[in-house]
Amino acid sequence: MDLMCYLDEKRAVVEETLKDYFPVVEGPDAELARAMNYSLFASGKRLRPILCMAGAEAVGGDPERVLSVACGLELIHTYSLIHDDLPSMDDDELRRGKPTNHMVFGEALAILAGDALLTEAFRLMAMTDLNDKICPDTLNEVITMIASAAGAKGMVGGQAVDIQMEGKKIDPSLMEYIHTHKTGALISASVLSGVMLGGGSDSQKETAVSYGNKIGLAFQIADDILDIEGSTSEIGKPAGSDQEKGKNTYPAVYGLSLSKERLNDVIISAIKDLEQFDFRAEPLRQIARYIIVRKK
Amino acid sequence: MDLMCYLDEKRAVVEETLKDYFPVVEGPDAELARAMNYSLFASGKRLRPILCMAGAEAVGGDPERVLSVACGLELIHTYSLIHDDLPSMDDDELRRGKPTNHMVFGEALAILAGDALLTEAFRLMAMTDLNDKICPDTLNEVITMIASAAGAKGMVGGQAVDIQMEGKKIDPSLMEYIHTHKTGALISASVLSGVMLGGGSDSQKETAVSYGNKIGLAFQIADDILDIEGSTSEIGKPAGSDQEKGKNTYPAVYGLSLSKERLNDVIISAIKDLEQFDFRAEPLRQIARYIIVRKK
Repeated sequence: MDLMCYLDEKRAVVEETLKDYFPVVEGPDAELARAMNYSLFASGKRLRPILCMAGAEAVGGDPERVLSVACGLELIHTYSLIHDDLPSMDDDELRRGKPTNHMVFGEALAILAGDALLTEAFRLMAMTDLNDKICPDTLNEVITMIASAAGAKGMVGGQAVDIQMEGKKIDPSLMEYIHTHKTGALISASVLSGVMLGGGSDSQKETAVSYGNKIGLAFQIADDILDIEGSTSEIGKPAGSDQEKGKNTYPAVYGLSLSKERLNDVIISAIKDLEQFDFRAEPLRQIARYIIVRKK
Repeated sequence: MDLMCYLDEKRAVVEETLKDYFPVVEGPDAELARAMNYSLFASGKRLRPILCMAGAEAVGGDPERVLSVACGLELIHTYSLIHDDLPSMDDDELRRGKPTNHMVFGEALAILAGDALLTEAFRLMAMTDLNDKICPDTLNEVITMIASAAGAKGMVGGQAVDIQMEGKKIDPSLMEYIHTHKTGALISASVLSGVMLGGGSDSQKETAVSYGNKIGLAFQIADDILDIEGSTSEIGKPAGSDQEKGKNTYPAVYGLSLSKERLNDVIISAIKDLEQFDFRAEPLRQIARYIIVRKK
């Protein structure tokens, strides 16, 4: 299979579905909708929904059936970017090469656009008519699992510790905590949700968690490395901005060379996890390899 | 029945359930948990969960069975207060007589505490083991309905328009839009969720929406009146703060006397809506009357 074709094809489906869910609106709430759509359609990679669909495929499920949960994951991811960029958080002015949400719409509307995207995520995921081919109990288990991964014990928890520790020297275990929570939790939940909705067995779910945690960590390490080695045009924001802010990145704690080694090891281990899966897990295998070579 | 006893009793159940869900935690995420708990346990009235339970009772349902959705509603309400108070929004320093969340924990953690509470709301509501006596399809319909009421087309939408229109002169229809969305939507959803989970008929659900919309509106008018007539100790924040900010309140558009008249009319109409319900809707009737006389 050709991974680039696979990613393009899946991305197009996600894009189309999101556009159906979030049309341009008129009326008093048009500005809020514009703020939401501005970040939602800012040429994201759609990694999380693709991982959800690839997870479903890996266990023989239909990727089209998981689209509503897949899109929910993208909404959660998008809201987290808007809030992370806020002046009181990471204070970023550029994201994916475009001015960040609050630079365009102001701080208040950016916060509300994030709040609305997070809320709409759960609306989409719980909608019974969108998920009529999924057992409602499974759907609720998936929603609970995703909320855990996104909430106080997951993504938001990681961001809170990251913010509190900015500029402070931290030990490797706390940095691992930040990475596994801030980035890893939702990426892992994306794979797992697909496997659950696709009808995977308990042992397949366990594998999904292990694989997901590893590529989540790998993704963060690769991001940290890109922040140092990438150019502004490649990463869509000024290179070296993490360092400048005293962010606790992998290279800052372990150095660049050890970080690259660790990235490689984690990816190999993630692919090894998938040994019990057959050819249908090929997209998951190739996505893992892709994390090392991607440029943005 | 004695309404004060009823409210106290229900409030105690909600309080206890929330304390079980959100214990004091140790570890890197302790500060985030403290920020969440600070606002969650700030002597709120627990009106929304009580309305959910009273809605279930009104159609013969067991109020204990709806506790997890009821608590989810309170989490959504609490997050919205934290975000509304932020410097870039209403910039309030006091809430329920205590310093607002960002005054104590800083802006970043206040935003994250709100994000986490919103996420945890959906986790609680979707948890199958907490809701094992509820038909999962009904549960998903309730979650979707609550997310609609809380999201871009509901509460967040109302807050966005409110913020955009601050200090501008608006016509009565836009003010009605702000009120019905910002406050009314979630209050109405609280009653409706209880009726749905309690097994109410379609006609009972319709009544719940109509009653809910009216008491939601009444609650907002009463709040606006209290902001003018109440003392700081009664309302827990400086009196007249809406006026000072050029907020588009009911009294600002219609004057105090007409606002009181409208409040009265809406309450009478809400109680009339409940005519098809029997004695079990007595709490809903008395809660409607209480909105006029409450002092905070």
